[in-house]
Amino acid sequence: MSSPEPAPPPAEPGEKLLAEIREQPLALARLLEHEAEYARVAAAARDRGATTVRMVGHGSSDNAAAFGVYAFGLLPGWTALRDSITLTVYYGAELDMAGSTALGLSQSGQTPDVVEYVERARRSGAFTIALTNDPASELADRAEAVLPLGAGAERSIAATKTYLNQVAALGLLAAHAAGRGRAFAEELRVVAGQLEELIPALERSVPQIALAFTFVGRMFVIGRGPEFATAREIALKLLETCRIAAEPLTATDLAHGPVAALDPLFPVWTIASHDDSLPAVVEAAGRVREAGATLVATGDAADAIAGADYVLRTPRPPSPLLSPLLSVVPGQLFAWALARAKGLDPDSPAGLSKVTLAL
Amino acid sequence: MSSPEPAPPPAEPGEKLLAEIREQPLALARLLEHEAEYARVAAAARDRGATTVRMVGHGSSDNAAAFGVYAFGLLPGWTALRDSITLTVYYGAELDMAGSTALGLSQSGQTPDVVEYVERARRSGAFTIALTNDPASELADRAEAVLPLGAGAERSIAATKTYLNQVAALGLLAAHAAGRGRAFAEELRVVAGQLEELIPALERSVPQIALAFTFVGRMFVIGRGPEFATAREIALKLLETCRIAAEPLTATDLAHGPVAALDPLFPVWTIASHDDSLPAVVEAAGRVREAGATLVATGDAADAIAGADYVLRTPRPPSPLLSPLLSVVPGQLFAWALARAKGLDPDSPAGLSKVTLAL
Repeated sequence: MSSPEPAPPPAEPGEKLLAEIREQPLALARLLEHEAEYARVAAAARDRGATTVRMVGHGSSDNAAAFGVYAFGLLPGWTALRDSITLTVYYGAELDMAGSTALGLSQSGQTPDVVEYVERARRSGAFTIALTNDPASELADRAEAVLPLGAGAERSIAATKTYLNQVAALGLLAAHAAGRGRAFAEELRVVAGQLEELIPALERSVPQIALAFTFVGRMFVIGRGPEFATAREIALKLLETCRIAAEPLTATDLAHGPVAALDPLFPVWTIASHDDSLPAVVEAAGRVREAGATLVATGDAADAIAGADYVLRTPRPPSPLLSPLLSVVPGQLFAWALARAKGLDPDSPAGLSKVTLAL
Repeated sequence: MSSPEPAPPPAEPGEKLLAEIREQPLALARLLEHEAEYARVAAAARDRGATTVRMVGHGSSDNAAAFGVYAFGLLPGWTALRDSITLTVYYGAELDMAGSTALGLSQSGQTPDVVEYVERARRSGAFTIALTNDPASELADRAEAVLPLGAGAERSIAATKTYLNQVAALGLLAAHAAGRGRAFAEELRVVAGQLEELIPALERSVPQIALAFTFVGRMFVIGRGPEFATAREIALKLLETCRIAAEPLTATDLAHGPVAALDPLFPVWTIASHDDSLPAVVEAAGRVREAGATLVATGDAADAIAGADYVLRTPRPPSPLLSPLLSVVPGQLFAWALARAKGLDPDSPAGLSKVTLAL
């Protein structure tokens, strides 16, 4: 008489999220297998003179697009914008998009209004690109060019590896447009190695810090320049997995109003990286401290933030533009750990589903 | 023996803010005295082919710019973007701005990085415009063209009449660029009349509602399309005068993560106007209600939001694009009343000064 098979162990809360955070160095390496396609698509955009880059996406995809503004601005010197989907799709505005590259960002390639936007942008004369994990998706089908994200099947509801690869992909495309794609790809390989070491180290240090935030209901997340994308992404993770009203702000935004809301129960997460915006971030952190708020300093220039209550350093990448690929990780792991401390399952956020199909 | 002069009565908390909210119909009328200048500058931009509109400003000015995206997109069909000041001023990105109009928004005309941006944009080939209350300011001096806001001296720290006039000014400029400025100006006159009636009515109804929010620490403010500017502006007023962590979201943003944070202690302010985005706003409100959150419905389509806990209707303007000029007022008065209910003085927000000089 054989005993029955033991039942599989119950899922650990947040295990999918953690698995995908850990997978990020590998995901980045997979993206780089597609480098030739990025080079080809960048050349096509350049040949067409499509140097205004209109990026559209929701949630984490839109956050990655905020990085794209800097990648295209700093590398080929192109104007990139997070375009309004509503303007084109809901209101039917007729914009002349000749001279534009329209870049639809969607993990699944199924987001309806992103698909619809790309279709309309194509009719309006834009060079259209789908940036997606699924090169067989509807979005890929409608666009003239497809750039595979290579992040691999996403099982977690809160995006992590997809976001990381979107940021890297936009950087790679911008670098190829600027004629320095090869060097950028090499730098991405270095960052993948840095992530390999960073993630396990943060897994050890972050949970203890997160514990102190168990009863926090609101936070600001401050980043400037390319790190504003990181601030947006970390704030979104905190919102969706920890139910914290977390608002992303640039260092300058803070001074224009929100600083008035701060008090000792309103912690501020600061991302400080070694680039020309660092003095503004340091100054903003000073105002936070004056207001008596708890201050978390992260990024490769975390030590520049005087008087921080908590410090989570990240390694310095080969060039400053790549820092968002590293500085987002403390936030991802903090959200994962804090959700658990709050008794929430980050793999089952209330009211969210994997693919958001509603317009 | 004469008794000493009686001391002047102490300032009533928020009296400056309230005075400027009340002044808005008049401020709008003053803007319209400058209509000819708007017509002239729009013609200059058109003649130069400067049809990509780069708007820069901080705080309320940046919120008004979010309206500009729709005004220029829907009226002349131009691409307008809230450009990154950081990219140009801090990182020194060299963008080709031929074919661009660069529009600096600053109440005082003194905001240093806005002045610096406009100067650099001019060198990069943009047609530069200063939109300011002070046509003798540094910003006005650096730009090729000056558009007076006409809002009059601003004494309150939280902007209200300046924001309203910035929105109207961007609309007027866009309408003239589209060859229908005269009609738009007439519509603005109608709105000024609607504001005359709306403001006293809301002054009577809003304080009682605000009282119920005395202990609220976080809120979402939802608006879509041109009303996203309104959502941003109302959230900023709540942050700076009421110390509420208020986050502006589009109806679609909400579904991509933040909905997971909602609970009955997390109220949501919804702006519903009669335009093509109304179904998306109604659907988002439905999700808010399902999450058990308290729902405030405002705007000229407030009645389309089923099951709202509080309703603050605004009149329907002559055309949908003008609705943000009316729908912002309930939020302004709510912030004023709620700050007082919380025992705060909206005329003295912690840590803020009138002109933000820091970069």
